[in-house]
Amino acid sequence: MLPRIGEMIDNLTKPRGSMGLLEDVARQLCLIQATLEPRLLKPCHLLFAADHGIEREGVSASPRDVTWQQMINFSRGHGGVSMLCRQHGIGLKLIDVGVDHDLSAFPQILNLKIAPGTANFLHGPAMTHEQMELALAIGREMALRAHGEGSNIISIGEMGIANTSASSLWMSLLGPAPLGDCVGAGSGLPPKAVARKLSILQQALDHFDPSPDDPSRVMAHFGGFEMVAAVGAMLGAAEEGMAIVIDGFIMTACALAARRLCPEAAPYMIFAHEGDEAGHRLLLRILRRGDPLWSPARPLLSLGLRLGEGTGALAAYPLIETAARMTREMTSFQEAGITKYF
Amino acid sequence: MLPRIGEMIDNLTKPRGSMGLLEDVARQLCLIQATLEPRLLKPCHLLFAADHGIEREGVSASPRDVTWQQMINFSRGHGGVSMLCRQHGIGLKLIDVGVDHDLSAFPQILNLKIAPGTANFLHGPAMTHEQMELALAIGREMALRAHGEGSNIISIGEMGIANTSASSLWMSLLGPAPLGDCVGAGSGLPPKAVARKLSILQQALDHFDPSPDDPSRVMAHFGGFEMVAAVGAMLGAAEEGMAIVIDGFIMTACALAARRLCPEAAPYMIFAHEGDEAGHRLLLRILRRGDPLWSPARPLLSLGLRLGEGTGALAAYPLIETAARMTREMTSFQEAGITKYF
Repeated sequence: MLPRIGEMIDNLTKPRGSMGLLEDVARQLCLIQATLEPRLLKPCHLLFAADHGIEREGVSASPRDVTWQQMINFSRGHGGVSMLCRQHGIGLKLIDVGVDHDLSAFPQILNLKIAPGTANFLHGPAMTHEQMELALAIGREMALRAHGEGSNIISIGEMGIANTSASSLWMSLLGPAPLGDCVGAGSGLPPKAVARKLSILQQALDHFDPSPDDPSRVMAHFGGFEMVAAVGAMLGAAEEGMAIVIDGFIMTACALAARRLCPEAAPYMIFAHEGDEAGHRLLLRILRRGDPLWSPARPLLSLGLRLGEGTGALAAYPLIETAARMTREMTSFQEAGITKYF
Repeated sequence: MLPRIGEMIDNLTKPRGSMGLLEDVARQLCLIQATLEPRLLKPCHLLFAADHGIEREGVSASPRDVTWQQMINFSRGHGGVSMLCRQHGIGLKLIDVGVDHDLSAFPQILNLKIAPGTANFLHGPAMTHEQMELALAIGREMALRAHGEGSNIISIGEMGIANTSASSLWMSLLGPAPLGDCVGAGSGLPPKAVARKLSILQQALDHFDPSPDDPSRVMAHFGGFEMVAAVGAMLGAAEEGMAIVIDGFIMTACALAARRLCPEAAPYMIFAHEGDEAGHRLLLRILRRGDPLWSPARPLLSLGLRLGEGTGALAAYPLIETAARMTREMTSFQEAGITKYF
């Protein structure tokens, strides 16, 4: 099918290759949907939220209470994620898989809490193997439900104070990459505090026995619930043949874990945004190593977004929509009667 | 007003600065519209088309006929520009200011033809001073008309085979910058042909007397009509206090000319896309030199688009809309009752 897709794209009325990255996305959508006229149907954004035990060590610029406060803010339609979903007509599901606060009074927040936050991984595993299995299953179920409701593309976001710490450890172990290359400022730590964060995470890493090399051990040990659920959602979406829009550093770390568990998930992933978080660029480079040529982990945007919630993925939807429309709405040189350019 | 805008943006429920470039755009829109709640009203895309005498020298990968053929394609709703305008609900005006073909049978194409293409600037000025004044007036009038119809933001595109050649000469003389740094592959020249293009443009430059230093002499000498009309539209839009979305290399060369004629136009310009055309990056750097801090010529996208038509500007509209919505739809920390992050 690939040659036919390439021929179709090269025959649209534009200089060859002149739609740049959007041509790559168009090619990828054609392959995922096995059609020359892909469409985005009922895009859906899954936002998983949970708290992290490691937050107690002061590794984040923001206190743990921000997790539940922001969830309520989102449930009221405020916050970046709400605004972007509204702007682009994307369904938003808010899912509590482990927030350290009772959110049951908010019907817009799906209550699938596994525990009120993970354990502090400085002193032991963040979660049990059973909790990890449950988080994976919840994520998968949410993707399958979206598919059942007619979605053929999902994006995933997260809310969980301190989850760049967990992501750095996943990246370091699953990449693999030296921990120092994986740790950054998160939501806004000053340089001195970043050094402190690194030293705490190094301690946690030193206590972890990396063998046997099993991605699910790494995921369970360093958490968090929202990240494992995101991995489950990615695997569920790939299982159903849905496109998956991958946001910034945290979701890219989840994409790495998903691909370690199931390399076949790779072709379904569209990378949306390259953030400034130290390590994100390297993480994308690591992912590109294993990529098929027609589905590179080359992000569409680089706007310096770093508010999480999956906002980078949401901001990229119109570009993905353009890529899909291109194949259906631009004429071929033959149809338009235009002298074919070089 | 600037401190109040900064305070408002910093108080939205997100880590400070975490909306990245979109915060710059939000700040700029607030200033342009003199409000803390900017809105994009009836966005309008002006596409000016004209042919270039220099095309006769074989400086472009595409033949001159592509200009009129593409205009007909656009008028039928095909082509990249049509697709993007439809996707984002943007009004599209197709304006013939000098296409070398009778397009009067196509009512969707506004016939404001000045001449059937410019003269070949290898042998003399591309247009007379009167023709230049007329092109400027047409462009200005189109912007004023859009404003009269309720638009407060416009983008501008072009169709004109060989217009990267004209743009390179504008850039070299108005930048100023060495010609070799201003010449690239256009719609797809192979390297050898780029060298030939440079040598032809160097000849044209050698025949031009650069004094007195008057931007309008440079504009008239190297054309084209669609570029001068774009400059007129930028100046008209700035005059009416409209935001102006600037596309790739050619439109950035027009922005440079507009700013040489009227430096006060700078704050109205939002840069949409940094293309791969050699010289575009340098051109943006030249423009940044004179920029106020709150309105840097830092493009929102870098997708490798190079099909012209203003498609880079159109692709950036949803991001500009996000920047405007952010100020209106995200709550402040106080309103949301959220512990303020760093």
